[in-house]
Amino acid sequence: MEKILQGIPASNGISIAKAFRLENAELTVLKESISDLSAEIDRLQSALSHSRSELTTIQRQTQEKFSEQEAAIFSAHLLVLDDPDLSAAITDTIQTQHVNAEYAVQEAANLYVSMFEAMDDPYMRERAADIRDVTKRILSHLLGVSIQSPKAITQEVVIIAEDLTPSHTVQLNPELIKGFVTDIGGPTSHSAILARTLEIPAVVGSKTAMATIQNGEIIIVDGEAGRVIVNPDAETLVAYQEKQHAFAKQKAEWQLLANEPAITLDSHRVELSGNIGTPDDVESVLKNGGEAIGLFRTEFLYMGKEQFPTEDEQFEAYKSVLEQMNGKATIVRTLDIGGDKELPYLQLPHEANPFLGLRAIRLCLDHEEMFRTQLRALLRASIYGNLRIMFPMITTIDEFRQAKEIFLDVKQQLISEKIDVNETIQLGIMVETPAVAILADIFAKEVDFFSIGSNDLIQYTMAADRMNEHVSYLYQPYNPSILRFIKMIIDAAHKEGKMVGMCGEMARDETAIPILLGMGLDEFSMSASSILRARSQIQKLSKATLENQIDHILSLSTADEVLQFIKSLDS
Amino acid sequence: MEKILQGIPASNGISIAKAFRLENAELTVLKESISDLSAEIDRLQSALSHSRSELTTIQRQTQEKFSEQEAAIFSAHLLVLDDPDLSAAITDTIQTQHVNAEYAVQEAANLYVSMFEAMDDPYMRERAADIRDVTKRILSHLLGVSIQSPKAITQEVVIIAEDLTPSHTVQLNPELIKGFVTDIGGPTSHSAILARTLEIPAVVGSKTAMATIQNGEIIIVDGEAGRVIVNPDAETLVAYQEKQHAFAKQKAEWQLLANEPAITLDSHRVELSGNIGTPDDVESVLKNGGEAIGLFRTEFLYMGKEQFPTEDEQFEAYKSVLEQMNGKATIVRTLDIGGDKELPYLQLPHEANPFLGLRAIRLCLDHEEMFRTQLRALLRASIYGNLRIMFPMITTIDEFRQAKEIFLDVKQQLISEKIDVNETIQLGIMVETPAVAILADIFAKEVDFFSIGSNDLIQYTMAADRMNEHVSYLYQPYNPSILRFIKMIIDAAHKEGKMVGMCGEMARDETAIPILLGMGLDEFSMSASSILRARSQIQKLSKATLENQIDHILSLSTADEVLQFIKSLDS
Repeated sequence: MEKILQGIPASNGISIAKAFRLENAELTVLKESISDLSAEIDRLQSALSHSRSELTTIQRQTQEKFSEQEAAIFSAHLLVLDDPDLSAAITDTIQTQHVNAEYAVQEAANLYVSMFEAMDDPYMRERAADIRDVTKRILSHLLGVSIQSPKAITQEVVIIAEDLTPSHTVQLNPELIKGFVTDIGGPTSHSAILARTLEIPAVVGSKTAMATIQNGEIIIVDGEAGRVIVNPDAETLVAYQEKQHAFAKQKAEWQLLANEPAITLDSHRVELSGNIGTPDDVESVLKNGGEAIGLFRTEFLYMGKEQFPTEDEQFEAYKSVLEQMNGKATIVRTLDIGGDKELPYLQLPHEANPFLGLRAIRLCLDHEEMFRTQLRALLRASIYGNLRIMFPMITTIDEFRQAKEIFLDVKQQLISEKIDVNETIQLGIMVETPAVAILADIFAKEVDFFSIGSNDLIQYTMAADRMNEHVSYLYQPYNPSILRFIKMIIDAAHKEGKMVGMCGEMARDETAIPILLGMGLDEFSMSASSILRARSQIQKLSKATLENQIDHILSLSTADEVLQFIKSLDS
Repeated sequence: MEKILQGIPASNGISIAKAFRLENAELTVLKESISDLSAEIDRLQSALSHSRSELTTIQRQTQEKFSEQEAAIFSAHLLVLDDPDLSAAITDTIQTQHVNAEYAVQEAANLYVSMFEAMDDPYMRERAADIRDVTKRILSHLLGVSIQSPKAITQEVVIIAEDLTPSHTVQLNPELIKGFVTDIGGPTSHSAILARTLEIPAVVGSKTAMATIQNGEIIIVDGEAGRVIVNPDAETLVAYQEKQHAFAKQKAEWQLLANEPAITLDSHRVELSGNIGTPDDVESVLKNGGEAIGLFRTEFLYMGKEQFPTEDEQFEAYKSVLEQMNGKATIVRTLDIGGDKELPYLQLPHEANPFLGLRAIRLCLDHEEMFRTQLRALLRASIYGNLRIMFPMITTIDEFRQAKEIFLDVKQQLISEKIDVNETIQLGIMVETPAVAILADIFAKEVDFFSIGSNDLIQYTMAADRMNEHVSYLYQPYNPSILRFIKMIIDAAHKEGKMVGMCGEMARDETAIPILLGMGLDEFSMSASSILRARSQIQKLSKATLENQIDHILSLSTADEVLQFIKSLDS
């Protein structure tokens, strides 16, 4: 029967495909007495062999689609699986204790895990995690429970999950993932940002998708309305197929704008740039007519790994992006972890309020060697294109001065090593804290450019965690407080002849765009999938007309008044 | 041997007394085989009887010092202790299993706890907590480990603790606590605020006090320098006794200012008020020459309890404060829980970033009945004095309008019940979020007064948790961003003829006072112990001179430049 779930719109478009539940498998093992021992050992052998062929396939696919290095984790898993001591221990337990294979696997695994965890060598300790993963795989075959890895998907699906983490990213195959629906998260959750980067329709915060949707059910994801239709009846299906076609048609029309500049009716030009997470994302930005990269989130180079990326790995990634961009401006943000983003190989302190904690530039200044490695890689790559470097979460001018000093020192070192670097790299900052917004005049004198990180700026200005559903009503991009800060930032930058971009969600928001344009924002950076729609919108606006409305907008009291006013301009 | 620890100054003054370690006792129970069963049962009986006399004493003391109601929890503990079923179960375990009393106590307790926890009735479920407490007490006697309750202190001591929680508050006897030293926390932690409220010298964030200091060692707490001296030698002791006398002498001199107004050299008058947590704190405010109550933190009425305070309980507390204040302005802040403050009887969602979550007015608007009860109690008490009501953590004007509407509705209801209320209660807000600071002109039109909550305003502006030591360098009251916000708030209020106070830590800060005075702050509200020092400082300043420096101060780039500039004014 047809069911409808309402969630939060996260990425536009319509998708229709079968549901694929991404879940933590239930692998409860009970101890049982077994009389037919040889049948039990056969079960074990069969499970081991299934696990082996599964891992071999995943390893090969990862190698083809990603890299040798990303595939290495699965080679390690195969080594564990083929360890003769481990299988001997399991068989031995079945035979001497007359127990079921599941129990024997778990007992042997527990023993090995605790042995490895007790070791001093961090590398050996990490092997415990491999054993746990492999154990889960064997158990899933014995228990007849499937464990889903997004990498194991072989047909077109809509992913249903509680949430998607950044580490899922490396495993997703955008060709097969037609949409996704998550139970938690808001419009700026990782899942939502990921969906827009991959241009996949998505609904987040559906709350009940995992409780409602079964594997294989037909799902319609209406990413614009935030609606999910489960088991649509024929009439609904036809209606949505039409919508899907209409959406594709509009996309095709927008595609005609790909090589046009973003110029308003009164000939004011702005820059439309793309936000990317990996070198692979550049293609989509260019295809969608992105004129620059306004934000390269370098966290993705550090995530889904077992150790820090080397300087050379980073160099290759930055070089690849710069070469693909072929001289167009490319703003790379230095590492922004901490907060809700963690790295398995970097021990961070537990924090009661991680969003108000040791994150981004604060962490980089605290871990200077890590920061220097990134800056070296960036500087080495700088000769391949138009690199700009941007520091996230700057709060005081001292932090910027300190980061700049380290940058200059790294640069000097490279020069003394006779390594070529670009001499004219611009250094800018993300404006994310109210402290910087209100002191923008002071910062504008020292930085080369600003990029407004609207997501965090809203979060800190409103003192409301944007991931927390209980205070999500306070995530108000149109709140006059936010708009006043943005106006201050733009005016301060322009007074010093500096460029101001925005790389948060607000830059692609149809209500915000006219306001930002009227205030004089120079660069709008967004997920590739939004660029053409934004260009189409900007081409229908007049900057001078909007400019005249700004004073009035900034005198309004509430976000709703702003929204109503912008709507009234349309009519 | 003399040892010196350096921590963070939290409350001025010198104290010299023996150390009392407040710790979570180590109550590890091992199972042992026992042959002499009757000796073991004697050990049990002795532990039970010691626990009984201990509880009886604490119960009596609490009743005398606090109230019947606060003592009730210990009556409940005595009932558990005297439960014949429980002691029979313990004795039985010792005799049949031949085990030690500790093990038998723990086994029996676990059984009872799980029985009670499984019950549907919430009241019965809470009994599980009583059983756990009583079990700890019995075990402490069996194991010869003392568990310390601040209520159990019977001589003058310096408390050494990892941290003090708000719930410790009700248990502290200010007459016996001569000082305290905590391992964690910063200048605005609860421990620090509590110390200033109680006028007890304190050092927080010492990191190693618990690891270094033994019970009974002689401790000198130098609250001004943030220094702790353990086992001072004779020379040090004499030097600090002299300092102690000098401090007492200065206090006596300041005391002469108790009945004078706070007037600058150029005859500008400001109001010096006190921050309080309970009706008992009013006495100290008045003794120290407080002209008003700038902040009554009503959380304390809700904490250390098993259920919400009734309307009548609250009414009595508010009435007591208003009567003591005898017509002087009394600003009561409505409930500010959530964040790091929890109530055992109010289930709050787990939040990843509680400081950015459902707290203060957000929580009150979400729990309207709870909020209405508080407003009813306040309105009923309003006829006994000069009540002003202040809403905490306001972020949007809608929230203020909603809170005001509820207030007016409650008032109307009381009037229709023929209950007298004061018709002229002022309604104000705490300015704690950057959103309100930058829209202060809009808020100033609708609220009756502002009170700047500098602690939170700094925390949100700098996006740095003030309790997180890793980012404590960003807690910068003199950062020009903070000062610009404060100036905007004051100017906006004055333009509408409204009063602006400040009730955060900054209001008592010797460097901040000249700046705030120059900006035109009307009211400085602080812990009672700081009022006379502040008055003495203000009497030596000229407002007009400072006013002329404000533009320059607001053009500075860093907190350090501001600090140096203020220092240069002194010379």
